Amino acid sequence: MSQHNIPTRTTLLVAERFVIEKVTQQLPDGRTFSREVVRHPGAVVIVPVLEDGRICLIRNYRVAVEQELFELPAGTREANEPPIETARRELKEETGYECRTISPLCEFYMSPGILDERMFAFVARDLQAGSPALEKGELITNFPVTLSELDQMLGSGQIQDSKSLSTLLYYLRYCQ
Amino acid sequence: MSQHNIPTRTTLLVAERFVIEKVTQQLPDGRTFSREVVRHPGAVVIVPVLEDGRICLIRNYRVAVEQELFELPAGTREANEPPIETARRELKEETGYECRTISPLCEFYMSPGILDERMFAFVARDLQAGSPALEKGELITNFPVTLSELDQMLGSGQIQDSKSLSTLLYYLRYCQ
Repeated sequence: MSQHNIPTRTTLLVAERFVIEKVTQQLPDGRTFSREVVRHPGAVVIVPVLEDGRICLIRNYRVAVEQELFELPAGTREANEPPIETARRELKEETGYECRTISPLCEFYMSPGILDERMFAFVARDLQAGSPALEKGELITNFPVTLSELDQMLGSGQIQDSKSLSTLLYYLRYCQ
Repeated sequence: MSQHNIPTRTTLLVAERFVIEKVTQQLPDGRTFSREVVRHPGAVVIVPVLEDGRICLIRNYRVAVEQELFELPAGTREANEPPIETARRELKEETGYECRTISPLCEFYMSPGILDERMFAFVARDLQAGSPALEKGELITNFPVTLSELDQMLGSGQIQDSKSLSTLLYYLRYCQ
């Protein structure tokens, strides 16, 4: 599937956090197809596991959907930044926690029909509390939950952010 | 959190499947903040449960990430289309299956930092096989799996599409 012709790309718009491209590509069956694609540098999401086994969720106000969501801490990669470094940095910036142990959990694409954003999920342990350093426009507060509270929140639809839903359900199924 | 000032919106780009807007909003703490947002009409994802309990995944070639992914059937809402009708239509178009029973499973946002796409997940049962009706540019084939094959695929990172990961893990945890 990866040997077909190299796609041609035209930049339509450069935004602060993404770029819109028009991609024209020859499909494996020989037909030509154009589509507008949102280019994104990739991101990380972190499961912060506290000493007592609770998971540190965050409450995060989201301009795009005009509401506060329960999420895991997460953030966008800087240019050439290894995802594990993004994860350490964003965990500290958003929750104040520095971690001594961090390990990869899983990886996935957020919305591969229109967006190339790849998400790298990590589990962070041995956490040391400190002060967050929120960016302009970020409204975030920590919200630690026990595993049974988390299960209840997931099952009742209180966690509506796909990266957090994927990562938390993956963690509960394959890391417990 | 929902009583603060109404945001101002400027359209930057109209693409075939989304619109880019600049949103300027007064945050709950009184500061003003601008961000580019991808506007999307919302989408559906369907867990098709076959008579023998297998789940009908699809293999789907994705232009945005230039690879074939294992996913659940899914698709974008037409204007004013109720999500349950989108789900019936997309299930038929992508897999050929018509369903007699369909029920809501969960709902979530795909990438709420930049994109307002809301995903409505359904479980479809009592399926009747037929012919798919793929759109131009769609390269999709059915890939039915048992629950234990599915579990193995999920745990080994073979399912990399966030909406499918969220929906399948949710289905396995709360509907089995």
